[in-house]
Amino acid sequence: MLGEFELIQRYFMSPQEAHATAGIALGNGDDAALLVPQAGQQLVVSVDSSVVDVHFPHDAPAHAIGHRALAVALSDLAAMGATARWSLMALTLDKSVFNDRAAAEQWLAEYAKGFHALCQQHATALVGGDVTAGALTIGVTVMGEVPSGMALTRSGAQVGDVIAVTGALGGGAGGLALWRQGERELTHPLLARYLLPQPRLAAGVALRGLATAAMDISDGLLADLGHLRKASQVGCSLEVDALPLAEGLQEALGLEAARKAALSGGDDYELLVTLAPENVETARQRLTELGLALTVIGHCNDNPGVTGVARSDNEGWQHFSGVAP
Amino acid sequence: MLGEFELIQRYFMSPQEAHATAGIALGNGDDAALLVPQAGQQLVVSVDSSVVDVHFPHDAPAHAIGHRALAVALSDLAAMGATARWSLMALTLDKSVFNDRAAAEQWLAEYAKGFHALCQQHATALVGGDVTAGALTIGVTVMGEVPSGMALTRSGAQVGDVIAVTGALGGGAGGLALWRQGERELTHPLLARYLLPQPRLAAGVALRGLATAAMDISDGLLADLGHLRKASQVGCSLEVDALPLAEGLQEALGLEAARKAALSGGDDYELLVTLAPENVETARQRLTELGLALTVIGHCNDNPGVTGVARSDNEGWQHFSGVAP
Repeated sequence: MLGEFELIQRYFMSPQEAHATAGIALGNGDDAALLVPQAGQQLVVSVDSSVVDVHFPHDAPAHAIGHRALAVALSDLAAMGATARWSLMALTLDKSVFNDRAAAEQWLAEYAKGFHALCQQHATALVGGDVTAGALTIGVTVMGEVPSGMALTRSGAQVGDVIAVTGALGGGAGGLALWRQGERELTHPLLARYLLPQPRLAAGVALRGLATAAMDISDGLLADLGHLRKASQVGCSLEVDALPLAEGLQEALGLEAARKAALSGGDDYELLVTLAPENVETARQRLTELGLALTVIGHCNDNPGVTGVARSDNEGWQHFSGVAP
Repeated sequence: MLGEFELIQRYFMSPQEAHATAGIALGNGDDAALLVPQAGQQLVVSVDSSVVDVHFPHDAPAHAIGHRALAVALSDLAAMGATARWSLMALTLDKSVFNDRAAAEQWLAEYAKGFHALCQQHATALVGGDVTAGALTIGVTVMGEVPSGMALTRSGAQVGDVIAVTGALGGGAGGLALWRQGERELTHPLLARYLLPQPRLAAGVALRGLATAAMDISDGLLADLGHLRKASQVGCSLEVDALPLAEGLQEALGLEAARKAALSGGDDYELLVTLAPENVETARQRLTELGLALTVIGHCNDNPGVTGVARSDNEGWQHFSGVAP
């Protein structure tokens, strides 16, 4: 068995030299970290748990588990238009791995690689950690900053706004379906969407001052739109034809199942935003510069609930009013 | 099964009216919370996991589990001399509880009671949560503030400083021993020390500007003193006779086992501090006002490691140089 202190030291200490620029007065290794928030910024904080066989398969590669646990947490900062700054990780290792030194070292080295690579990509420093043994569970707390008053929330959507999403939908559910069928190649675009999601932090920042409301799509478009609609007290109408489907999704599942995955599959970690119609073009240009699509998929109205628009060849999507919570 | 959204809403939303005074621009319920740090303060952050049957017994009362999970995390803020402000909680509920609505509601209501009572006691707002199902595990992230440059760290101890502890030691281990013997009355002073530890936040604040180094005692005095010694690069000499033993500990375990519990039992969540000898009296007066003892138990020297002082009637404690990591 590895000592917790040794584990944290070896795999999770942030390089000290990076501290000065990252607003860290004292990093990992004392009772707590000391951070220096920037003046004029609000602090944006969120926590997300990733549990084995609930949020990721037990036989997923360790680097993907590390990446994914951080990615789903960072996605919440993206949804607020925040810049990521710091993270803390409560890692409960599988007991059998924890008690086998060689297995633990191998697993942790891979896990840390995935976690740190994403940290680096988004300039996020790991400033605190706790490692215990039990059933594999990872709680990641992320902290970011946003200029005061500029955060994107769920509650600002207005009647007349368009509803749009970044990137493409259904990839999370499509990847899970493929994993269950035995696909293990992480370069497969759908598997990558499921196990290596990319938090849309740059998109969130780019949409500051443009989006009237924003949230990330983790529970599925319909469920999440239900949350946004409730928080903003508007109705929503969706054009199912317009949903941007993830690469390879229709080929893998067929059109009907692909649309269902995009509507309610979850785990996509794209941003769901509302915009005044006159701002859509500016928003699209900004996201294009980031290599990311912005697709209008509906609009806000003053009807109750979420309603769908009929497709001529598919009566199934005609009405799903009330489907969303 | 309860929906996660409903769970968080019902049991863990902080009252909105408290937000204005607590530096919360936007609380629980959006993708992330928006906090407003105070100017001139550093942010102090830490995370701690509490795992069933590792950190607390599976049959501990739910309110004690809630209290304890937060207490051990807050203890790290106390050790930095910080004022507690905000917390986030990643709760993985036991699957069988999660899937039984009545059981889940009863457990959560009790759990939340313990968690919130301690929140209130230390003016800490819960600003984020995630509830999942698996093996009962709680990750608590705490955030506090300390005036810039005033944090107590592990690395400031000087040769010639005295070593002191707040309160009394060995109660955590003594309580665990009693629990294993079947004692279930939480008003028993040792059981209270084990399951309802009190984070020494006020003591940490009171010791700002006086203590040269501080940390909380979670792994046991010897192990934690080993961490402090390493960080400060000093040697430590302990007077085992001087160790303040928890109420009822000697009666429950006998003197020898009581001293062992105080030295290496862990889970005490008292503060271990070093002080220049001329500041001891001031520090003691400040803690007396908080109803808390401060006991000198040794001093820092320039020898390597941690050494013990002989008791005439007990050769066993004569030398434990090298025991601590």
